[in-house]
Amino acid sequence: MAQTPYKQLEQEWKRLHAFRGAMAILRWDAAVMMPRGSADVRGEQLAALETEYHALVTSPKITRLLDRAQANTGGLEDWQISNMRVMRRQRDFAIATPVALVARLAKAASKAEANWLLARQSGKFEDFAPHLEEVVNLVRDKAQLLGQARNLSPYDALVDEFSPGLTSAEIDAMFKALARRLPALIRDVLVQQERRPVLPIAGKFSASKQKTLAIEVMKAVGFPFDRGRLDESEHPFTEGVPGDVRVTTRFDTADPFTGLLGALHETGHAMYDVGMPLEFADQPVGRDRGMALEESQSLLMEMIVCRSRPFVKYLRPLLEKHFGVSGPEWSEENLYAHLTRVRRGPIRVDADELTYTLHIQLRYELEKQLLEGKLAVRNLRDAWNSSMEQRLGLKPASDLEGVLQDVHWAVGSFGYFPSYALGAVMAAQFYEALRSAVPDIDEQIVRGEFSGLIGWLRDNVHGQGARVSAQELLKQATGKPLSAASALRYLESKYLVSEPVVGSAAA
Amino acid sequence: MAQTPYKQLEQEWKRLHAFRGAMAILRWDAAVMMPRGSADVRGEQLAALETEYHALVTSPKITRLLDRAQANTGGLEDWQISNMRVMRRQRDFAIATPVALVARLAKAASKAEANWLLARQSGKFEDFAPHLEEVVNLVRDKAQLLGQARNLSPYDALVDEFSPGLTSAEIDAMFKALARRLPALIRDVLVQQERRPVLPIAGKFSASKQKTLAIEVMKAVGFPFDRGRLDESEHPFTEGVPGDVRVTTRFDTADPFTGLLGALHETGHAMYDVGMPLEFADQPVGRDRGMALEESQSLLMEMIVCRSRPFVKYLRPLLEKHFGVSGPEWSEENLYAHLTRVRRGPIRVDADELTYTLHIQLRYELEKQLLEGKLAVRNLRDAWNSSMEQRLGLKPASDLEGVLQDVHWAVGSFGYFPSYALGAVMAAQFYEALRSAVPDIDEQIVRGEFSGLIGWLRDNVHGQGARVSAQELLKQATGKPLSAASALRYLESKYLVSEPVVGSAAA
Repeated sequence: MAQTPYKQLEQEWKRLHAFRGAMAILRWDAAVMMPRGSADVRGEQLAALETEYHALVTSPKITRLLDRAQANTGGLEDWQISNMRVMRRQRDFAIATPVALVARLAKAASKAEANWLLARQSGKFEDFAPHLEEVVNLVRDKAQLLGQARNLSPYDALVDEFSPGLTSAEIDAMFKALARRLPALIRDVLVQQERRPVLPIAGKFSASKQKTLAIEVMKAVGFPFDRGRLDESEHPFTEGVPGDVRVTTRFDTADPFTGLLGALHETGHAMYDVGMPLEFADQPVGRDRGMALEESQSLLMEMIVCRSRPFVKYLRPLLEKHFGVSGPEWSEENLYAHLTRVRRGPIRVDADELTYTLHIQLRYELEKQLLEGKLAVRNLRDAWNSSMEQRLGLKPASDLEGVLQDVHWAVGSFGYFPSYALGAVMAAQFYEALRSAVPDIDEQIVRGEFSGLIGWLRDNVHGQGARVSAQELLKQATGKPLSAASALRYLESKYLVSEPVVGSAAA
Repeated sequence: MAQTPYKQLEQEWKRLHAFRGAMAILRWDAAVMMPRGSADVRGEQLAALETEYHALVTSPKITRLLDRAQANTGGLEDWQISNMRVMRRQRDFAIATPVALVARLAKAASKAEANWLLARQSGKFEDFAPHLEEVVNLVRDKAQLLGQARNLSPYDALVDEFSPGLTSAEIDAMFKALARRLPALIRDVLVQQERRPVLPIAGKFSASKQKTLAIEVMKAVGFPFDRGRLDESEHPFTEGVPGDVRVTTRFDTADPFTGLLGALHETGHAMYDVGMPLEFADQPVGRDRGMALEESQSLLMEMIVCRSRPFVKYLRPLLEKHFGVSGPEWSEENLYAHLTRVRRGPIRVDADELTYTLHIQLRYELEKQLLEGKLAVRNLRDAWNSSMEQRLGLKPASDLEGVLQDVHWAVGSFGYFPSYALGAVMAAQFYEALRSAVPDIDEQIVRGEFSGLIGWLRDNVHGQGARVSAQELLKQATGKPLSAASALRYLESKYLVSEPVVGSAAA
């Protein structure tokens, strides 16, 4: 018996899923393993696969099958209807972006990424700028085409590609709500924290010991090491497919937390990716519903869970075990104070929860200007540095601490950064709901048990795949629409300490 | 202006080259980096790419272009004419093997390789046998189809796929010529060597120090580390493409030579691959002319160069430097004796030059029987062990030392093993010619200079790519047709010591 049009679509996308997985491993390899001189070769390979992938998605056969399958959806399950919707979306996006452009962008991004790595050695933005410029030009072309096809502004078309349905209007509204409260909150918290100095945590923590610790914590969280790896790279990332997920971090031997928290941030992504029902894991609906939700999962893990008192209680003995450390600076109280220290610093991935949003806002505004042609790449460093000074009151000591710190633009990811801020807001909203659903979550985490956490997320977020919109998913999981309210509640209650009014009798 | 049919063919194969490179990295990753549980996912990926590759090569467009290009070869260079011949050959092979079979074989091989690795943990052939059986069945189907298409016996069709133009008749003739002299030679050498004991080389040599040493020697040979890597894997191999070549070895901490010689064996392959003229490096003619020639390059390096007195002179101070060793067992004389020690052992990759051929003959005969259905996989271990006993007078202590030692069959490489024996014979023939062309080759190697060696090989072997047949290339480079004569001369002069006749006056 011939297969139904829908079943044929599933077959086609199973093959596309295999292509996607192959490209993911090639990208992982490029960042973690590949000899630097081979960037040109890898660029050709990724371009060839991208081109083929593009040709497969845009083939008349797919359009025909989609039309036929959508004309008769009888007998299909809900997730299969959603699956078709995501297929159609992928096809529409692919048709809007011509294959030659996709290939040129893949090649330029591969070259720019390699040169970003080289520029991080030399420390000079100039070494990277011409390659970034090539990428920006191509992304701009793509954004224009996507925008025309989807009736969105070029930048919104890119945002929509990463986070379906979200727009810069919503992003602006969110930043506005946060801006109403955050600057004063940061100021107050800084004043409070200045009165309670943190004992410095110093020492030499070998990368190999840090990796062993990270692996132990990741195992406790449930990361599937039989189908995943942890490695080191310039910039932490998660790649691969649910059956073979590759997480990276970077270790700083002077600091035992950067590498661990980087690994756990990525573990947040990874758990989302591997939490899809097997039933549709190799289908388009068996994926995250955009990058804002992805980042909600990584930030929930890194910022909310790992910088909490219960987690510190769990972690302290592990630090003792792996690094052989002891002393007052390694007390729970001091570790927690260290991990929740607010500081105006130049590096996004090292930033605390309170100042993090400012880092994102800076990038969001610069990338919009780059895309809209209002800012030239050659002026990007100056624009970065002056925006940094204005927002955080500091000047990066070098390009490494400034414009060269993120890989996103090098690989053509414009429209991605707002996902981090949206993700932080969503994470707080999820966590608020999770805490009422799992009342003993703190006790569980103290014991190193993460099944309550991951279980709730699997039921309410991960397992949904791309069946509904991010906004809809959030509402189903938390009972409320997207809003910055939970985030502000969470930040205030965590960072503002209600202090005994000392010596105020005289006032 | 429209491109000529020939130029279009070059474009098509440039894309195929990118696909081939992508698959190579995925295979490398599967053996070196991939989590064990991800074999199924990788199998799907490789199958999808293989299928696509196959579809591209067998497309009517390619046939049409080949016909048109071959109808008018005016203005084409010699290498381009050869290029078309290799293209046609690839197309013919692909057409003879249906896409469904190729995909099933790729999937089965990926699974079998992962289970071979698992079986090497458990040490039990039984854990691997069912997976091997699946591979054998599929390879048998393929051999039948290829044989029909090319008018060859099924086994010869597989040999021809790896080493174009070579047949089992030629292989049998070679084994016959070697068998006339080798057994007696081995016996005599063993008697001689027994009279001159070698001081044992013992100690603990960390894998990381061994790797550093291997990298230093590989650099001296000219391995391009800006476009290549050295890693560890269960079984040494070379993968990748000229612009990104991946070499692996395995280190034994009780023995400072296994890992080094494995790495240099693979470096022999790698230097062949990277020695193609850039002009046609991404074209079919820009590849080795079959596996026999490939193995001639690896064995020339590992067996002839690295187990020579000049190389030992160069290596001795490096051993001192990297391992901090000294003492009489580290003298040149003892090291050379150690590296040219003849011993009947169970492991092919540890075998000396004299007994190596016996290991190959064993595999050659068993794989022919497996392919022809005269031997069942379930009886393979017994057949292996009894053949080992008959040929080398020993019984493997375990399956690890026996039937589980090679990865070749797991990944479907039947018809490959004879290349090792052919390669050894060709290597000796090349080296004889090289020594007369570069008279001071020994002095160069003592100084750690390998440019004379690699230069001659590049001019006479590597740089030829696949322009002429292996037999023709050999004749051009050495002035003689393929024959075992050089190999026997080389082995006799190296291993049979003309001894002073001590105490024979009384006889």
